[in-house]
Amino acid sequence: MKELQQIHQEFAKLDGQEIAIIARVRSNRQGKAVCFMIVNDGTSFDDLQVVYKTEVKGFDDAIKARVSSIVEVTGKLILTPGKPQPFELMATEIELLDQAVEEYPLQKKEHSPEFLREIAHLRARTKTFNAIYKVRSELSFAIHKYFNDHGFLYAQTPIITGNDAEGAGETFTVTTRSDNKYEQDFFGKQSTLTVSGQLHAEALAQAFKKVYTFGPTFRAENSNTSKHAAEFWMIEPEVAFNDLKANIELIESLIKTTVGHVVEKCAAELKFLETNLEPGLLDKINNLVHTKFKVTEYGQAIQLLQEAIKNGHQFEENNIVFGLDLATEHERYICEVINQAPTFVTNYPKDIKAFYMKQNDDHKTVAAVDLLVPGIGELVGGSEREGDYDKLIKRCQEMKIDPASLDWYLNLRKYGYYKSAGFGLGFERLLMYITGVANIRDVLLYPRTPNNLLF
Amino acid sequence: MKELQQIHQEFAKLDGQEIAIIARVRSNRQGKAVCFMIVNDGTSFDDLQVVYKTEVKGFDDAIKARVSSIVEVTGKLILTPGKPQPFELMATEIELLDQAVEEYPLQKKEHSPEFLREIAHLRARTKTFNAIYKVRSELSFAIHKYFNDHGFLYAQTPIITGNDAEGAGETFTVTTRSDNKYEQDFFGKQSTLTVSGQLHAEALAQAFKKVYTFGPTFRAENSNTSKHAAEFWMIEPEVAFNDLKANIELIESLIKTTVGHVVEKCAAELKFLETNLEPGLLDKINNLVHTKFKVTEYGQAIQLLQEAIKNGHQFEENNIVFGLDLATEHERYICEVINQAPTFVTNYPKDIKAFYMKQNDDHKTVAAVDLLVPGIGELVGGSEREGDYDKLIKRCQEMKIDPASLDWYLNLRKYGYYKSAGFGLGFERLLMYITGVANIRDVLLYPRTPNNLLF
Repeated sequence: MKELQQIHQEFAKLDGQEIAIIARVRSNRQGKAVCFMIVNDGTSFDDLQVVYKTEVKGFDDAIKARVSSIVEVTGKLILTPGKPQPFELMATEIELLDQAVEEYPLQKKEHSPEFLREIAHLRARTKTFNAIYKVRSELSFAIHKYFNDHGFLYAQTPIITGNDAEGAGETFTVTTRSDNKYEQDFFGKQSTLTVSGQLHAEALAQAFKKVYTFGPTFRAENSNTSKHAAEFWMIEPEVAFNDLKANIELIESLIKTTVGHVVEKCAAELKFLETNLEPGLLDKINNLVHTKFKVTEYGQAIQLLQEAIKNGHQFEENNIVFGLDLATEHERYICEVINQAPTFVTNYPKDIKAFYMKQNDDHKTVAAVDLLVPGIGELVGGSEREGDYDKLIKRCQEMKIDPASLDWYLNLRKYGYYKSAGFGLGFERLLMYITGVANIRDVLLYPRTPNNLLF
Repeated sequence: MKELQQIHQEFAKLDGQEIAIIARVRSNRQGKAVCFMIVNDGTSFDDLQVVYKTEVKGFDDAIKARVSSIVEVTGKLILTPGKPQPFELMATEIELLDQAVEEYPLQKKEHSPEFLREIAHLRARTKTFNAIYKVRSELSFAIHKYFNDHGFLYAQTPIITGNDAEGAGETFTVTTRSDNKYEQDFFGKQSTLTVSGQLHAEALAQAFKKVYTFGPTFRAENSNTSKHAAEFWMIEPEVAFNDLKANIELIESLIKTTVGHVVEKCAAELKFLETNLEPGLLDKINNLVHTKFKVTEYGQAIQLLQEAIKNGHQFEENNIVFGLDLATEHERYICEVINQAPTFVTNYPKDIKAFYMKQNDDHKTVAAVDLLVPGIGELVGGSEREGDYDKLIKRCQEMKIDPASLDWYLNLRKYGYYKSAGFGLGFERLLMYITGVANIRDVLLYPRTPNNLLF
């Protein structure tokens, strides 16, 4: 028994040979002289065309095989130069192993994304979702491979936590009770689902220098947008002794290497997605991989946006002042119009960033960095971390975070500490960018959003 | 600036050259003629010995550098044939970048595992935990690499779920409420933390043939044993069209390949663990990698255990009858004494196994497989899945599982279905086996157990 992936790789060698395959029927139609059955066993994006005649062994069942049925086909592989597919299988025997019901929900027609979300357990059988999930899998592997190749420790930071990394964000409670007596709960106190593994990773970076997390994170935000999900995956590297500049280099290297890996491994899938979801997708991705990213300081970005307005450009938010939390329209203008390249914006005002970011000498800004990418805006957020214990405590107090709740983290600064930097990359956001998918629900295998917990 | 990993790899080439490194102080002592500082930057298991004299630039600070402080050392690399370490660094300058406080909790002395669990954010700095976590990271990567090399799709199955895979098991509730009005909750119904990704993976295997999950799973069991944690990681592959035999081959191949990878990549770490945690560790692991695993049917295993009792062997449970759920003592006897090899036990009585396992023609057993390993007993549990819709429904009813709650899963059998098999491998259990760690709390980065949610 062969797998389709192998057949597609070796078809030239297999010319004229007998092969057998177990696969699912994608379509089955009777022509004038011969019948055509398109099958796929799931191992290859490209299908297999089976040609059979009335003489084939098992014809009576074969001709009745419905979409999604499972068949075992034996036959001779024939090269078909000049046809759309490079080869086909001339069947000598077709065994109908299992007939699908007539009511199979994925008949050969266009389905809306909304309908397909209701059958998320089946939608991977469509070409579109097959391609998306394959890219998801290859991008995941590329990320693990990148970090392993570069000597990073993979740190599976905890999902259930007693901390709240940002001192903000709406969290899910984890409990075995049906009331709120958390002191009698499983962990003896209130526990939540993690919003970030960063603080836990920072502690480990002090032991291993280079670590990363890649795992699920959670937000209980009741927002029904195309960009928000309650459960999504984050990549969070942290490197001890790194400063902001080294952090920026790591972001650029990680993205270019991993996306480059996907371009190489998922050529058929990306081509399909370009045709069906986003024209120009491959050029866009190749630009990301080959363009040198630029660096613009936040203060300079504000000036450039002010100049744009003077020159007649209109934003929805035209009150551009130092301290503004850039909206997507501003972020896109910076990287699409001003720099015409993916852009690192650095040194943001401290009041719009998290407590743990390193305060710069100007007392106004922190050593933060966001990566802005044409088409979407922010893709990555990171920073060098504050190494000064007293400054960190003061910042916690200013931001109404109880230092006592994070003493284990804050104390790291007392035990020998010299710089640390890291960032968070939303896995699904990167995946949406390189697949052309517009809704986060369609890059997650089983999306979780408000009032939506099917499967 | 060099990383220690690189210095250890290239030390022969670096003989006599000046190098600089930023690293943490592990110890610092004044000898008669010279001073010795052991440092490590976290990138290498093996440390670096720095030798310095009173003439060194920065001596006054260097000599005061406490354990865990951060220093930048510049000096000349000198080969030291005949000494325990192959080279040392003769310092020309030492800069004390950050002095650790005197109260640093990890001074150079023996610490109990219990104490180290209370400082889980620091214990990675000890040699023992450094080795364990490095093995954890390399084993994780080996698992991803194995599946990627073999054409499996990595499926990040959901953490928050509305299902309960086994129809059993104590689960954590995920909520945004402080009462139990789940119909008004975030998802509009009660949601829990997953106990297994298997059912979700099975649906995807119907699309991709070969898929695997590798992610966190949860049990709200209030058991304080050395083997139970509330949060742990599971590997769950699923392959469409596979039968029990192919499933067994996959288990053996996965374990041998991934553990073999760790033996190759973590030689220093495993040697340390053998010396400090488990004598004979490397022989044990190499046996796992190189011994051909055996297969024994459950029914035959029962007979063999009965014979053992006739021949005078005493178990705690001596009532060995068909239907017995084998205890660890029986499992260990089968693989350690009877087969003297890792052993697949197959075809268990259906009443002690899950509803989704394929019922054999004898109407008594199911096509289940457990892998039993010397020293621990069960390491893997898996099965071929029931493909017959009616049998599956009947089994649900017999086991008091409401088929309506799983209709999306059960219906897969209607949409073209021909065999599927898979298994679950507890990642931490395998990790304990190959590191010699006796308590699951010590292979998890931040363990979660009843009444224990530090960090």
